[in-house]
Amino acid sequence: MIELTRRATFSASHFYWNDAWSAAENQRVFGRCANRNGHGHNYTLEVTVAGEPDPVTGFVVDLKWLKDVMEREVVDVYDHRHLNLEVAEFAKAVPTTENIAIAAWNRLVGVIGNGGAARLTRVRIYETPEIFAEYRGGQ
Amino acid sequence: MIELTRRATFSASHFYWNDAWSAAENQRVFGRCANRNGHGHNYTLEVTVAGEPDPVTGFVVDLKWLKDVMEREVVDVYDHRHLNLEVAEFAKAVPTTENIAIAAWNRLVGVIGNGGAARLTRVRIYETPEIFAEYRGGQ
Amino acid sequence: MIELTRRATFSASHFYWNDAWSAAENQRVFGRCANRNGHGHNYTLEVTVAGEPDPVTGFVVDLKWLKDVMEREVVDVYDHRHLNLEVAEFAKAVPTTENIAIAAWNRLVGVIGNGGAARLTRVRIYETPEIFAEYRGGQ
Amino acid sequence: MIELTRRATFSASHFYWNDAWSAAENQRVFGRCANRNGHGHNYTLEVTVAGEPDPVTGFVVDLKWLKDVMEREVVDVYDHRHLNLEVAEFAKAVPTTENIAIAAWNRLVGVIGNGGAARLTRVRIYETPEIFAEYRGGQ
Amino acid sequence: MIELTRRATFSASHFYWNDAWSAAENQRVFGRCANRNGHGHNYTLEVTVAGEPDPVTGFVVDLKWLKDVMEREVVDVYDHRHLNLEVAEFAKAVPTTENIAIAAWNRLVGVIGNGGAARLTRVRIYETPEIFAEYRGGQ
Amino acid sequence: MIELTRRATFSASHFYWNDAWSAAENQRVFGRCANRNGHGHNYTLEVTVAGEPDPVTGFVVDLKWLKDVMEREVVDVYDHRHLNLEVAEFAKAVPTTENIAIAAWNRLVGVIGNGGAARLTRVRIYETPEIFAEYRGGQ
Repeated sequence: MIELTRRATFSASHFYWNDAWSAAENQRVFGRCANRNGHGHNYTLEVTVAGEPDPVTGFVVDLKWLKDVMEREVVDVYDHRHLNLEVAEFAKAVPTTENIAIAAWNRLVGVIGNGGAARLTRVRIYETPEIFAEYRGGQ
Repeated sequence: MIELTRRATFSASHFYWNDAWSAAENQRVFGRCANRNGHGHNYTLEVTVAGEPDPVTGFVVDLKWLKDVMEREVVDVYDHRHLNLEVAEFAKAVPTTENIAIAAWNRLVGVIGNGGAARLTRVRIYETPEIFAEYRGGQ
Repeated sequence: MIELTRRATFSASHFYWNDAWSAAENQRVFGRCANRNGHGHNYTLEVTVAGEPDPVTGFVVDLKWLKDVMEREVVDVYDHRHLNLEVAEFAKAVPTTENIAIAAWNRLVGVIGNGGAARLTRVRIYETPEIFAEYRGGQ
Repeated sequence: MIELTRRATFSASHFYWNDAWSAAENQRVFGRCANRNGHGHNYTLEVTVAGEPDPVTGFVVDLKWLKDVMEREVVDVYDHRHLNLEVAEFAKAVPTTENIAIAAWNRLVGVIGNGGAARLTRVRIYETPEIFAEYRGGQ
Repeated sequence: MIELTRRATFSASHFYWNDAWSAAENQRVFGRCANRNGHGHNYTLEVTVAGEPDPVTGFVVDLKWLKDVMEREVVDVYDHRHLNLEVAEFAKAVPTTENIAIAAWNRLVGVIGNGGAARLTRVRIYETPEIFAEYRGGQ
Repeated sequence: MIELTRRATFSASHFYWNDAWSAAENQRVFGRCANRNGHGHNYTLEVTVAGEPDPVTGFVVDLKWLKDVMEREVVDVYDHRHLNLEVAEFAKAVPTTENIAIAAWNRLVGVIGNGGAARLTRVRIYETPEIFAEYRGGQ
């Protein structure tokens, strides 16, 4: 088995807020991230698939196909969007790096599972070059 | 003369919009950036000062002082803010990378000019690692 | 005046060879680069334009337009090509980093000169992250 | 147990082609990569070994020795070469990122297994900063 | 379960030396690193914690808290220090990248284990961008 | 005219200290950098030469020759050294980033001036990815 990874980037805005809390409590827990006007990041999405290289093509997965899947399922949905206000899965869940990684996994796992022998094994979201979350489907 | 450069980063949200235009015209000119909910970036601010190294300390400028100036004058004002809605200079000027570079120069040039023999010679703003604007005070 | 820079990448193959020389002389001058089967690089093209920000849009140049120009004029011509064998300007000139920078400038300068108030001021070609050539139109 | 990783780079040319297929079929499956003149990349080889630090030297493995092994076994064989035409293992196997990672593992695993207590646990090949394959010996 | 990673940097000096050996033996084994005046690096510390995101905050761990822990427990102790001469754990153990990773783990594992549901799963130390050691607590 | 740039790295230790001052004064001016045990960095040396590409080779300068000059004149002298204690030019001048850039220029300018039509136009020293000094020979 071999793993193949591809990266893509998107820019989005978000804020951290819990409606059940007072403004002061939101400020205490989320700090500057609680600013309701939002702030933004250049995110990097890193997707890893695993499988055996096809003996004829040498491909675990067609990288052009993987790029298209990543763009259609994640990048086009999140890029230049306000995640809290415009992306369905963050109407309830706070769009932390952790929750974005889980949401991206959920968007990808069905499609990549249907893409042939390869299966999704890892999703990473970099919020900045210094901070990233990694999800392996709950394993 | 020698130049010394320091970088800092901030995360902010913005959108591109001209109130004098229709929504369709804003969409045509600004594309996805016209989304009024905003989107965001990890910006890098790069500040260059020039002067002669002090013969005793070997410093053109005290880098700790430069860091404090950059944080106080630019990073603390822009970080985790929505530039259009919360930063005065972008109430009128669209917060493009070009205009952010000019605005950061204007915030810094008086303070650094007062900081000793060194003078401000260049400000760069990276919107992403692939795009940056550079301003030298109109020269 | 302010400068705006955008990067793009392409992958290409090349070798260094002078038909007027013996194989030994080519080997002596060009070393491993004289291998006639070619070898390759991930190149980065970095294009800088200068002008005044438009007072309404805040743009020196429309970055989407600049991206399209860079792709059409340079990236699409060089990407996944063998520069010596498939790109006209390198039939005679050795495709060194220096000559690729000059050739990219020549491909861009007319188009960007026609693109409005902005003018081309700098082209950089990175052969690796450690080596790059910069051309300013002979100035 | 602790893991120690070292990187090295090489530049090489390749193309994707299956002799059993028509030109049109190669074009359909491999796209621009099917160009028979080849194209190239700056590859990064990343090698990870695992073991216990020697109680006297603090080394899992001598990094100078590891550098020499990586250069002799992989970099010197692949650098400034056309992988399809000049490297034995790619006479049959298409030199995809996946197959290069497997081939580099096979070149290294015997030598590093003989280098003391440390053993090879992972090989990564980056084709670009955005795409990489990782091999752990079939595990 | 999801993993969250944060990076920080510090600059430090070190040398490699074993008092039980002759100068010649130290030179033979450690090479240029045996220079008793020391030499230095910009190190990167990369800390990974694992847990379930809190259903209310979306956090596996509070990244501000993690930053403070990393600074207090590791960065403040190692930054701008001579590791051999000024940091207790390297009075005996040679400050190789491997041993620094183990020492940083030992400094962090108790504090992060007390920080809630999250637990420490990985520590990486990059000595340069080309060399890093990874420790998972002996697993 | 075209400019060609090459990078190399070295690791070294230094501290900031002025013998004419008290320990308290050194601490006040230089902060943590005044620690007499030294601390260290991975420095990047970036050297730019300018000239016309040779019409036959396409070279402004032979990059292999430039690499050798950079290694012999700067990297081999500074790498794995304590700059204050072991490098002659820093016996008097404090090894700040500014002074290292000037010293590297002085080591290179004579040799590169003798290397053909190309001349040295710029030396940069990166102390970290966030801080660098640039020297153009006093111009």
